[in-house]
Amino acid sequence: MSNAIEARIGDLERYIPSLTAEADLDEFWERTLAEYAGKPLNGTRELVQTPMKGMNVYKAAYEGADDTPLHAWYLTPQAEEGTRFPCVVHYHGYTGSKGMPEHFAHYILMGFAVLSIDVRGQGGDTGNRLHQHYGAVKGWLTPGILDRETAYYRAITIDAIRAAEWAAEQPETDPERVLLIGGSQGGGLALIVSALSALPKAAVAHIPNMCHMDFGILNSNSSLSEAADFVSRHPEHLGAVLKTLSYFDNLNLAPRIRIPVMVSCGLKDPCCMPETVYAAYNRIESEKEMRVYPFDGHWVSDGQNRLAMEFLARHAGLA
Amino acid sequence: MSNAIEARIGDLERYIPSLTAEADLDEFWERTLAEYAGKPLNGTRELVQTPMKGMNVYKAAYEGADDTPLHAWYLTPQAEEGTRFPCVVHYHGYTGSKGMPEHFAHYILMGFAVLSIDVRGQGGDTGNRLHQHYGAVKGWLTPGILDRETAYYRAITIDAIRAAEWAAEQPETDPERVLLIGGSQGGGLALIVSALSALPKAAVAHIPNMCHMDFGILNSNSSLSEAADFVSRHPEHLGAVLKTLSYFDNLNLAPRIRIPVMVSCGLKDPCCMPETVYAAYNRIESEKEMRVYPFDGHWVSDGQNRLAMEFLARHAGLA
Amino acid sequence: MSNAIEARIGDLERYIPSLTAEADLDEFWERTLAEYAGKPLNGTRELVQTPMKGMNVYKAAYEGADDTPLHAWYLTPQAEEGTRFPCVVHYHGYTGSKGMPEHFAHYILMGFAVLSIDVRGQGGDTGNRLHQHYGAVKGWLTPGILDRETAYYRAITIDAIRAAEWAAEQPETDPERVLLIGGSQGGGLALIVSALSALPKAAVAHIPNMCHMDFGILNSNSSLSEAADFVSRHPEHLGAVLKTLSYFDNLNLAPRIRIPVMVSCGLKDPCCMPETVYAAYNRIESEKEMRVYPFDGHWVSDGQNRLAMEFLARHAGLA
Amino acid sequence: MSNAIEARIGDLERYIPSLTAEADLDEFWERTLAEYAGKPLNGTRELVQTPMKGMNVYKAAYEGADDTPLHAWYLTPQAEEGTRFPCVVHYHGYTGSKGMPEHFAHYILMGFAVLSIDVRGQGGDTGNRLHQHYGAVKGWLTPGILDRETAYYRAITIDAIRAAEWAAEQPETDPERVLLIGGSQGGGLALIVSALSALPKAAVAHIPNMCHMDFGILNSNSSLSEAADFVSRHPEHLGAVLKTLSYFDNLNLAPRIRIPVMVSCGLKDPCCMPETVYAAYNRIESEKEMRVYPFDGHWVSDGQNRLAMEFLARHAGLA
Amino acid sequence: MSNAIEARIGDLERYIPSLTAEADLDEFWERTLAEYAGKPLNGTRELVQTPMKGMNVYKAAYEGADDTPLHAWYLTPQAEEGTRFPCVVHYHGYTGSKGMPEHFAHYILMGFAVLSIDVRGQGGDTGNRLHQHYGAVKGWLTPGILDRETAYYRAITIDAIRAAEWAAEQPETDPERVLLIGGSQGGGLALIVSALSALPKAAVAHIPNMCHMDFGILNSNSSLSEAADFVSRHPEHLGAVLKTLSYFDNLNLAPRIRIPVMVSCGLKDPCCMPETVYAAYNRIESEKEMRVYPFDGHWVSDGQNRLAMEFLARHAGLA
Amino acid sequence: MSNAIEARIGDLERYIPSLTAEADLDEFWERTLAEYAGKPLNGTRELVQTPMKGMNVYKAAYEGADDTPLHAWYLTPQAEEGTRFPCVVHYHGYTGSKGMPEHFAHYILMGFAVLSIDVRGQGGDTGNRLHQHYGAVKGWLTPGILDRETAYYRAITIDAIRAAEWAAEQPETDPERVLLIGGSQGGGLALIVSALSALPKAAVAHIPNMCHMDFGILNSNSSLSEAADFVSRHPEHLGAVLKTLSYFDNLNLAPRIRIPVMVSCGLKDPCCMPETVYAAYNRIESEKEMRVYPFDGHWVSDGQNRLAMEFLARHAGLA
Repeated sequence: MSNAIEARIGDLERYIPSLTAEADLDEFWERTLAEYAGKPLNGTRELVQTPMKGMNVYKAAYEGADDTPLHAWYLTPQAEEGTRFPCVVHYHGYTGSKGMPEHFAHYILMGFAVLSIDVRGQGGDTGNRLHQHYGAVKGWLTPGILDRETAYYRAITIDAIRAAEWAAEQPETDPERVLLIGGSQGGGLALIVSALSALPKAAVAHIPNMCHMDFGILNSNSSLSEAADFVSRHPEHLGAVLKTLSYFDNLNLAPRIRIPVMVSCGLKDPCCMPETVYAAYNRIESEKEMRVYPFDGHWVSDGQNRLAMEFLARHAGLA
Repeated sequence: MSNAIEARIGDLERYIPSLTAEADLDEFWERTLAEYAGKPLNGTRELVQTPMKGMNVYKAAYEGADDTPLHAWYLTPQAEEGTRFPCVVHYHGYTGSKGMPEHFAHYILMGFAVLSIDVRGQGGDTGNRLHQHYGAVKGWLTPGILDRETAYYRAITIDAIRAAEWAAEQPETDPERVLLIGGSQGGGLALIVSALSALPKAAVAHIPNMCHMDFGILNSNSSLSEAADFVSRHPEHLGAVLKTLSYFDNLNLAPRIRIPVMVSCGLKDPCCMPETVYAAYNRIESEKEMRVYPFDGHWVSDGQNRLAMEFLARHAGLA
Repeated sequence: MSNAIEARIGDLERYIPSLTAEADLDEFWERTLAEYAGKPLNGTRELVQTPMKGMNVYKAAYEGADDTPLHAWYLTPQAEEGTRFPCVVHYHGYTGSKGMPEHFAHYILMGFAVLSIDVRGQGGDTGNRLHQHYGAVKGWLTPGILDRETAYYRAITIDAIRAAEWAAEQPETDPERVLLIGGSQGGGLALIVSALSALPKAAVAHIPNMCHMDFGILNSNSSLSEAADFVSRHPEHLGAVLKTLSYFDNLNLAPRIRIPVMVSCGLKDPCCMPETVYAAYNRIESEKEMRVYPFDGHWVSDGQNRLAMEFLARHAGLA
Repeated sequence: MSNAIEARIGDLERYIPSLTAEADLDEFWERTLAEYAGKPLNGTRELVQTPMKGMNVYKAAYEGADDTPLHAWYLTPQAEEGTRFPCVVHYHGYTGSKGMPEHFAHYILMGFAVLSIDVRGQGGDTGNRLHQHYGAVKGWLTPGILDRETAYYRAITIDAIRAAEWAAEQPETDPERVLLIGGSQGGGLALIVSALSALPKAAVAHIPNMCHMDFGILNSNSSLSEAADFVSRHPEHLGAVLKTLSYFDNLNLAPRIRIPVMVSCGLKDPCCMPETVYAAYNRIESEKEMRVYPFDGHWVSDGQNRLAMEFLARHAGLA
Repeated sequence: MSNAIEARIGDLERYIPSLTAEADLDEFWERTLAEYAGKPLNGTRELVQTPMKGMNVYKAAYEGADDTPLHAWYLTPQAEEGTRFPCVVHYHGYTGSKGMPEHFAHYILMGFAVLSIDVRGQGGDTGNRLHQHYGAVKGWLTPGILDRETAYYRAITIDAIRAAEWAAEQPETDPERVLLIGGSQGGGLALIVSALSALPKAAVAHIPNMCHMDFGILNSNSSLSEAADFVSRHPEHLGAVLKTLSYFDNLNLAPRIRIPVMVSCGLKDPCCMPETVYAAYNRIESEKEMRVYPFDGHWVSDGQNRLAMEFLARHAGLA
Repeated sequence: MSNAIEARIGDLERYIPSLTAEADLDEFWERTLAEYAGKPLNGTRELVQTPMKGMNVYKAAYEGADDTPLHAWYLTPQAEEGTRFPCVVHYHGYTGSKGMPEHFAHYILMGFAVLSIDVRGQGGDTGNRLHQHYGAVKGWLTPGILDRETAYYRAITIDAIRAAEWAAEQPETDPERVLLIGGSQGGGLALIVSALSALPKAAVAHIPNMCHMDFGILNSNSSLSEAADFVSRHPEHLGAVLKTLSYFDNLNLAPRIRIPVMVSCGLKDPCCMPETVYAAYNRIESEKEMRVYPFDGHWVSDGQNRLAMEFLARHAGLA
């Protein structure tokens, strides 16, 4: 008795594809996280002038998965010294950058500090010291993709975890109130950090990628199409590529999430397709809410952004 | 001895097409402005709650070219009563809307008040009481286009002028420091208000439309293509349509501008084409600066937005 | 044992999605039709010269859902005074117009009178006095869409019903032989008038829209994409929009049809998709015939037009 | 002092590219026309039933450039035996067909007889007995293109000339009032028959092809792109292809036209580009009128069709 | 427990649509093959110079389905007279040609002779003497399509069978080791010749067409879209067209194949869609191997070509 | 008196845009070449099995601009030890690879040895040890682009020069007869190596890039669009980017070429646009031939490849 839209959403809510995890998934992450647990962040921060007098703007950097300096903005409201703010850690979408301080002005007016990082190599200021050992497809996804240890996803996941750690260390940040947000690639990172780090208290994953990647590599026009092109050239590597992806697939990692998450999804998104988003979402066992938009493609609407602001405020005790 | 990019820009700097103004252009505007000079704005404003504690947000409305209530956000920093801020009046691009208060948070952190209005009928909350008296093309441009008195451009120009007037009336606004900004349609409106109103002190017109419209209707993919489609169906109306457009063409009105303006232009913009932007810009006689982007299409880059922030701060005495 | 084409058609013939009707559907139409039952048409007609000496061409107008004058052509064969012709009422597709008298010359040669009307606001001569009370998406569909009483579909349905009534009143028309035809939007109107008016004797609905609109808004590239865009901007209005559409959905109204109808469908039509056409068609209980074209998109072929001519001639007693 | 549209049209009006005629152009046509001068048409006609009682419909055929039977509709108003009507000969656009009798109903109502022919091989009922002696590109243009004697354009030009001759022979046709019309390929044929046959009294060439083909093969997306693809595969044939085309180029033949012609042109037509249409038009020395549409692409508008009807009526003495 | 790619392939492996064969399929081919069994090939060959000293290049021709001379390259390694090589017969894709001798140099270096033929009428040197008896769609597929006896597929199938026969007759060819290869149309021909001729010893059919054509005409963008367009214009011919296709559909003929075949398939091929390739492949009862590429469209990768080389070498006793 | 095609080509032949060379261009290359003059190539080669018995296939590697091992195929005809062959060095197009040995079989049959190298990082087996020090655009062009010393073009130019050197060192190569060939990026490399190395004896540059890059970055859709996107994000780097490109622009280096070159060009090539190819070609002072294809886009036709084979044979003394 449901209409066509309700029927479609109902099918997605019941979509539970097989996990693709290898037997040593947990062991891999235990070992990997241990490797970085004690590694110093070697962070730096420098106050810079902007036309926004009401915001303190720091050009920041810290060391991520290797000695690549990850560039970032650390932003705070103006306040008496010693004030500690809840902090939003922002991850951007594929090919993007940490953006400009003005993009985060609304968080400052809400009472948040903000850390917005570059994802390595992409459109910001941050380089990428990962060596490229063999031929690749345009983009960042395929160099190193034949092994989980050299995979780009491994590096950016560690970079993202360490971003939250660097944010928590700052004197203006209340380390008990670090929250994550991002869209697309940034949403995928928000989910995987939620699964792998005990630090964040809540997360917003708009139209996340890094979900049900066996489906996405076959059907989507996302950055996974780089991996598809790579396998198209080297069909013998199909198995290795799928295996590598499985270690970073939120489908497999979602059950680890212990914090409240908000996820969004557009039914017309050909990039982070609804099947992929729901496949991971349906595996989350903590407090969660899905915001589904029947007619939206691969974008985040103003309304969804406002819902995220309210969600973050609520979980930071600002509402 | 110049490279291909310099050569292209040099040609644009020397591009001075004929004015298309009718003999009674000045008389038309004198009469039209007089008609509205004493008409009350009947404005309203209501404080609304948002997650941004540092911003006062008012849902506002005022009467524009007819009794259509124009919806808007009026936003101010939190400050002691009686403080007066310079105010940025924002005009959006075609099919857009006044947006969300959070879009203007950076201006608040700079120390500006902001008024962001809906352009009537388009994607915001504002309707359009202009009657449609004959068949039209999808969009807002062609209903009424056969006569300057019923033209949509006339209505939105008056709406835009009265926006600045309403902003100046608010107790939090310093009426000597009202500045205009917009992109595309919004840039066109910023220019035409600069030409027709004595109120603004400076203006930023990103990639403005409403410039050299005889060229744009023939060559661009802008909203003028609605007018082109209309003439395609009714070839007998070519003259009338071109005549109507001429009264609202910044090519003809640019010499009236008396304030500092910043204009931007993308050499790859198929919508607000470089020829059209330069044609109007080259007719401006006041203090002016052009920001030209050789590889940009119809968008406003983060860097250009920052330049605009600095320009506005400088002309508002905030820098 | 069927081939791929037969299998596809077989699936469509068995496709019976749920009705989406609200409980008060019948009451809504009873009230609405009663409101217009006694309202005068205030029609006008004026003989105009064309190069076609064998056709009497009248520029006509009548009042539709409000006081908007609906423009139309009323065309008759030349004959002795007092001759009464069966009359074809023609509804055009979205963004179109009543066309030119020459488009209907073949009906004249068949012995029909013709009434071809503008759909309000679209590409003909007819304006639209419906007020736009809030922001909308380009096109005619979304202003007023939040309420069945202000919906554009309500207005054009009434306009279309009254077209048949005006046609029946003309002295050259045999009021017992008024037939309807249209394609796409025009096909949708032909069906809904067939469902709501006792006047027509038969109808042809080529590739009709206004069918199974919950499916169409989600999947098609028809004018419903305007409604989809509207909901994309205002997700909170999804329910209201779907509710409004349900009152005008031929899926819900088809069981009321009591006259013979011919319907056509292209299996490759991304606009009026086969699922939507069959969903309504399968609910029709009167004499009906489906003409399905496996390789046709959103167009009406010459052959289908000829079949329609034969169908109309047969039901008008001309064959 | 002209606007951008006037400036563009002015440039076209002054555009006089070099003729591309070979020295023996006249000799070629003298010989070719002589070859067919006495060849019998071997026409046939058969009355068929349609729902249009007011039109006599004959399925006709005659022999064109070889023994291929060219299929056609010959249509007349109903009238007393012995009545002779002016006759419109219609040539269709590329890939099209003679159409359906109902497409020409308006001419019948004007008092014309109509002959609408298939262009050989294309979308109608008519085959093509020209042998294909070497490999070709999809479409009809390139088989035989290496020699003017075997060229498809030669065959269809003769077919088109003989169509006018067959029309003139019919007892219902007034042989002094044969007029030509067509669009695109049909416009090209209308011009070339006007140049080569003494029979027609006037012609309408909407957006004609077969004009300034050296420009068109380089720049347009017309059927000449088949010839371009052929030369792309066989670069050694560039000269032969251009030479063949030159014998059928209205640029070279236009000065022979002795009858009134109406030509139309869309400034946005990427197929029969304005440069090509004007290049031929500017060479016509007889009574002529150009209808130029600044915003039209490769289509013929309703308004232009009405102008053509009036032009034909005037030159047939029907107006 | 399978991932999305395995699941998709598994579905294809189990896809067994109904045969579409007419009752007289076997009788048709028995009669047809008998008709050509004794018909002389009337072959010619002429040694031509190329820059490749290590290859003997013969411009060859033979008679195919009618008296059309089929042009071809016959290529051999340089060797002592009397040496007999295994011979690869190559069929090209739609609109292509026999190519250039250099395209086959790798086969020469492997120790193969090569015969590469033109498919009639398409992009090589070979004409097409099949008469076109009625109007058609651009391309070679639809002339003659209303009857299996006049169908283009019949002619090219016979041409392809006789190519193998001509190759086997050459003194440099070992007639026991004739092998077939082709892609797309060429793959379809390789399969149908494998089914109908006792001559070949093995075949490679890359992404073959002429498979499950009832599905392909409805869903693919292959050359079958010409047949779809033809039926779109002439809906009354749907049955005749499907019937004609059924005689040349490898779906129906695959069970006749008695030799080893390698078939390839791209899951993203919109032209020779996976359903069509698997439908025929699943009906093959001889030794067979499928090479499926999850991310490949309508192309043959370098790796697949190498696999084909190895397959051919193995079955020719060269490996 | 020329036709449109001749006129276009004539304009190109007279197109002489300004050089963009910096004052220290010569000094830069003198220093750079000196730096690598004595650096060992550290080459390796390993015989591998393929199905092509007539070709010796070596998997090779050597060190290029840094310690990145450049992977390559070194291929020779089978011959008595001590035979020395002229050697073709092949550079591939952007995103491509060294290909497969079978791609070069025709050169083997001509009597050439072949070296086909990977361009670093792209679609072959070769990695890229250049560090990425800041954010970049997808692709290989923009990392390092802010300085000629770190530019990707510098590395690949040195890699390409050293390829010729490694080829010349092989015992099967006649070092006096090393010839270069490539298309697009490979054509650009063939030209720049011709300009900078004394080793090659002749070169073929099909549709070369790295020519008149100030024009190409503004107008083409080539890999320079990566640089354009980079500047679009970082407008402050326009000058630095153009300066870097100038050191690798064949426009500036062409006058250094001392060997015979064949260049090709497609007038419809939107990637390596005719203006850019002719701009460099017109500056070449040695023996040269241009092959221009009026209707070709960004591809190399079979005929042009054959011309290249003949050109190479002639200059290697094989013809």
